[in-house]
Amino acid sequence: MGNAAVPPSVTQLIQTFSELPGIGPKTASRLAFFLLRGKSELALRLAESLQGLVENTRFCSVCFNVTEQDPCPICANTSRDHAVICVVEEPMDLLALEGTNQYDGVYHVLHGALSPLEGIFAEDLRIKELEARVGAGVVREVLLATNPTSEGDYTAAYLITRLKALPVRLTRLGRGLPVGGDLEYADAITLTRALESRQEL
Amino acid sequence: MGNAAVPPSVTQLIQTFSELPGIGPKTASRLAFFLLRGKSELALRLAESLQGLVENTRFCSVCFNVTEQDPCPICANTSRDHAVICVVEEPMDLLALEGTNQYDGVYHVLHGALSPLEGIFAEDLRIKELEARVGAGVVREVLLATNPTSEGDYTAAYLITRLKALPVRLTRLGRGLPVGGDLEYADAITLTRALESRQEL
Repeated sequence: MGNAAVPPSVTQLIQTFSELPGIGPKTASRLAFFLLRGKSELALRLAESLQGLVENTRFCSVCFNVTEQDPCPICANTSRDHAVICVVEEPMDLLALEGTNQYDGVYHVLHGALSPLEGIFAEDLRIKELEARVGAGVVREVLLATNPTSEGDYTAAYLITRLKALPVRLTRLGRGLPVGGDLEYADAITLTRALESRQEL
Repeated sequence: MGNAAVPPSVTQLIQTFSELPGIGPKTASRLAFFLLRGKSELALRLAESLQGLVENTRFCSVCFNVTEQDPCPICANTSRDHAVICVVEEPMDLLALEGTNQYDGVYHVLHGALSPLEGIFAEDLRIKELEARVGAGVVREVLLATNPTSEGDYTAAYLITRLKALPVRLTRLGRGLPVGGDLEYADAITLTRALESRQEL
């Protein structure tokens, strides 16, 4: 679409939108032309929000969650249990757990999972920092809440080898059937995990 | 997600992204957290592109296509046939037609289609301006290329009543089976149009 019918500033916006995940050239064009239809106010507001994001956010120096203050509100909250650290891959995982209102410990965000195939190794994640936090002594439990995927499981297994020498309890999230799921449609691995973690009634 | 775990600047970006068409709160969060993962360069580039769009683009005063110069490159091109005007609903429709390389007339962008249900009436579209262009006398043909939808057809029918008194040929795009389509899956209305517009071989 480098033809005369598309002005350069529109082409440029389409190309930049296309760099976002899940947004192909078609969606990018739709977004750009949507913003052209009398939505300059929205376009400018989006530009400001993006700048605000870059200028105001950083990672918490304790847990590496995204924050505007350092330490983040969770790490700074003295009414939470700082002896329990829940290890997640991404800030969005932390959000999902906070959404339950059932966890009052603190977090550690790895910013990814180990994936040798994609070139993501231990030194690319916040593992050294986790080790230092756990080694500092006040920690009683490390709850491994990496994703239930092969990368997440591999990361959890790796973290166990790194942390098992330290005097902490290592736990992980339960596995089994998701609430609201249908046994008939559950995959074999989920069913296997559900059988393995069956509970007395 | 207004809890302590999400900084205000992230919430704000998620909300602004959600105002774009086809982007719900889930996709908006994914985009925001994607940009947080070491993509501040991309976030700033996107902000700049959005500002560039607002600052540099306007509508061509002749055809109302999006442009950085006025008149737009198509209207300013003397090697195109200015006696044929193709009427489209949106700039993206113009792009699709330019993509064929088979049309060398000029365009007129209505910026929408008539839709009394959605409160879009003749005075909301660039119809008065079209009438003035056609009435100016150099125009030989008006090709109605509104969308093959009920709103598009209604708009075309309305334009015919507005323009039929003027000494121009009124045409519209052919209807029928799309190339590469499958007769078996074509809907009844498309098949009816294909039968109506059948051609001698």
